[in-house]
Amino acid sequence: MSAVCITLLTDFGLRDAYVAAMKGVILTRCADARLVDVTHEIAPGDIAAAAYVLRQAAPYFPKGSVHLVVVDPGVGSKRRGIACEAGGQRFVAPDNGVLAAVLKLYPPTRVHRLSNAELWRAEPSAVFHGRDVFGPVAAHLAAGGSFESVGEALDPAQLEQRAWPEPRREGDAWRGEVIYIDRFGNLVTNLPLDGALPAVGEVQIGTRRVPWVRTYSDVPEGTLLALRGSSNLLEIACNRGSAAERLQGTRGLVVTFRAHSGS
Amino acid sequence: MSAVCITLLTDFGLRDAYVAAMKGVILTRCADARLVDVTHEIAPGDIAAAAYVLRQAAPYFPKGSVHLVVVDPGVGSKRRGIACEAGGQRFVAPDNGVLAAVLKLYPPTRVHRLSNAELWRAEPSAVFHGRDVFGPVAAHLAAGGSFESVGEALDPAQLEQRAWPEPRREGDAWRGEVIYIDRFGNLVTNLPLDGALPAVGEVQIGTRRVPWVRTYSDVPEGTLLALRGSSNLLEIACNRGSAAERLQGTRGLVVTFRAHSGS
Amino acid sequence: MSAVCITLLTDFGLRDAYVAAMKGVILTRCADARLVDVTHEIAPGDIAAAAYVLRQAAPYFPKGSVHLVVVDPGVGSKRRGIACEAGGQRFVAPDNGVLAAVLKLYPPTRVHRLSNAELWRAEPSAVFHGRDVFGPVAAHLAAGGSFESVGEALDPAQLEQRAWPEPRREGDAWRGEVIYIDRFGNLVTNLPLDGALPAVGEVQIGTRRVPWVRTYSDVPEGTLLALRGSSNLLEIACNRGSAAERLQGTRGLVVTFRAHSGS
Repeated sequence: MSAVCITLLTDFGLRDAYVAAMKGVILTRCADARLVDVTHEIAPGDIAAAAYVLRQAAPYFPKGSVHLVVVDPGVGSKRRGIACEAGGQRFVAPDNGVLAAVLKLYPPTRVHRLSNAELWRAEPSAVFHGRDVFGPVAAHLAAGGSFESVGEALDPAQLEQRAWPEPRREGDAWRGEVIYIDRFGNLVTNLPLDGALPAVGEVQIGTRRVPWVRTYSDVPEGTLLALRGSSNLLEIACNRGSAAERLQGTRGLVVTFRAHSGS
Repeated sequence: MSAVCITLLTDFGLRDAYVAAMKGVILTRCADARLVDVTHEIAPGDIAAAAYVLRQAAPYFPKGSVHLVVVDPGVGSKRRGIACEAGGQRFVAPDNGVLAAVLKLYPPTRVHRLSNAELWRAEPSAVFHGRDVFGPVAAHLAAGGSFESVGEALDPAQLEQRAWPEPRREGDAWRGEVIYIDRFGNLVTNLPLDGALPAVGEVQIGTRRVPWVRTYSDVPEGTLLALRGSSNLLEIACNRGSAAERLQGTRGLVVTFRAHSGS
Repeated sequence: MSAVCITLLTDFGLRDAYVAAMKGVILTRCADARLVDVTHEIAPGDIAAAAYVLRQAAPYFPKGSVHLVVVDPGVGSKRRGIACEAGGQRFVAPDNGVLAAVLKLYPPTRVHRLSNAELWRAEPSAVFHGRDVFGPVAAHLAAGGSFESVGEALDPAQLEQRAWPEPRREGDAWRGEVIYIDRFGNLVTNLPLDGALPAVGEVQIGTRRVPWVRTYSDVPEGTLLALRGSSNLLEIACNRGSAAERLQGTRGLVVTFRAHSGS
């Protein structure tokens, strides 16, 4: 049997020792785990960005992978830690909304609270549950531990959902917003394009219309465009440029998509 | 048999989910691949920088490693994807010059076009061939797939070569240029020092002469110097400082090397 | 038997090919090594920061792990390379103080000089001992090589110690200093809290008193605080903010801790 993947998504950054300490603890408890970084460059405490990035990465991993998410501004407070199963993937995270986007894609089939302290490091630091609580639980699951053993079952309906805003239907249009800006300056929206995509449509960001195309090079260099992003969300981009710079785009900016009649 | 290495070199950055999604796809198809990041911090679309970095990393990996290079500003356009074998290493990349430097070092022994869509993810995204085309092909090769199976053979002479400028002989001197600036501010040139290195020589960058030495500490702190870089290319550096800052050096700056007579 | 971990801690950055070339060499010589990055974002030549980060990461790895540390501004000069065993961990590094903090925690049980050039790459580059000397030695140890084989034994008392300043007892107080600032703006001091921690104490940074608490959320948002950091060193932080920004804190800033009488 191949080694189980444990992915890591945090706001720890790559300068400090935090990621490595967490990995050391995991490998001490599950020597064969295959560790894959999702990112550690989430802005400190930016739960919404982490929720989006997780949604865009987790579905592509082998079934049974354990996704460890530690963006946890409330560390040491009373917020719960949880372990979930959804879409054949497993997740270990604080219950602060960081799983909201991926659990919208894949409804959770089980949720347990992290309450069995026997799995944790002894005397966990009040400020580093990634190393002392979440990491050990992820290693435990990757090594074959059961969900039951991490703590009591929870009702999935009670999980924190705030980090993923819903788009709204308005007449014949969808109204969403920019939820993430990537390194290329692409503006990712919460408008899902999972169903049959219309051949043509009208996209408006703020007060500006942008053409709906298949790929960047369908428009001249420096031109704004809208397309189906790689995770089936509508994106505003700029061929060989940055839409974020061009539009001074920020998260929360309103974007509407209207399918052409007949398409 | 040990696991095959797949190295990854992209301009995806480390903030977003792109690298992780690509790794997830690879591990789903080749669970035992050993993934090694070369870098993901190539500036968006900077093919020349990627070509240099690949040349500096690939030769040190075990024979048979697969080097996956996705710096691909033309994604979704008609540019070809290719798989090459050269110097005992394997490469998967767009045919846009990103392999030019390493293929100058090691002439390719075979080149195939990526045309067998059965190896790819179904309905590949028009904007993420790293995840949906190149990654799956790299996983296929690492898992034992043949070059023939990825698509038809190509003539190596037709590959894009632009990204690696040639130095020129001018009388008793070599005239090259700065092709890369590293994090330490070292200015790497395209002047190769593979043969017998002269004991002394004269190096000029722009209009400035710099001493030719063996290592940084051969000159006082803060002093400019020229030496054989770690990949046998001539470099301009500054002992415990940044030559790029000192010289306001940029790519393309002319550098000449003249062996002393008799040396 | 599980694969041996080799961790990597350098100032090479993540943009260039240096880390990958070093990993390629290691994997060529020890195909089963499990490579884990500690960080490569140490500021160029910042030995003190590397010493702290290593101390905070190494103790959490499986016994027998090999920690490869290449922050080496003196590369190519006469500074020694060393291999140490301490606390069940193994270390390979230049003898420039980069191991000082971890060896204070765990006194070294053996130290050897890297002098057996047969283990190195042939004709090592004068400017890249990470790839050509330290990496190969780390791979050799991970593959089962002995300390004796890397070179002659050294007296641990002669190792460079400067990179880790000692706190001082002053009457009923400890006087230390800020030794590291992490990405969250937490100011880490060299004041150890390994023994029985007093329930309350007084912490002063510069001329400012800050409350002593258990975790960030024990004070209102935006408030400064002091607590036991995750490596048992006293830290100054700010709940959901940056203590470094608030205090314009820099390394070397004086911090005192005084236990309350009776506690």
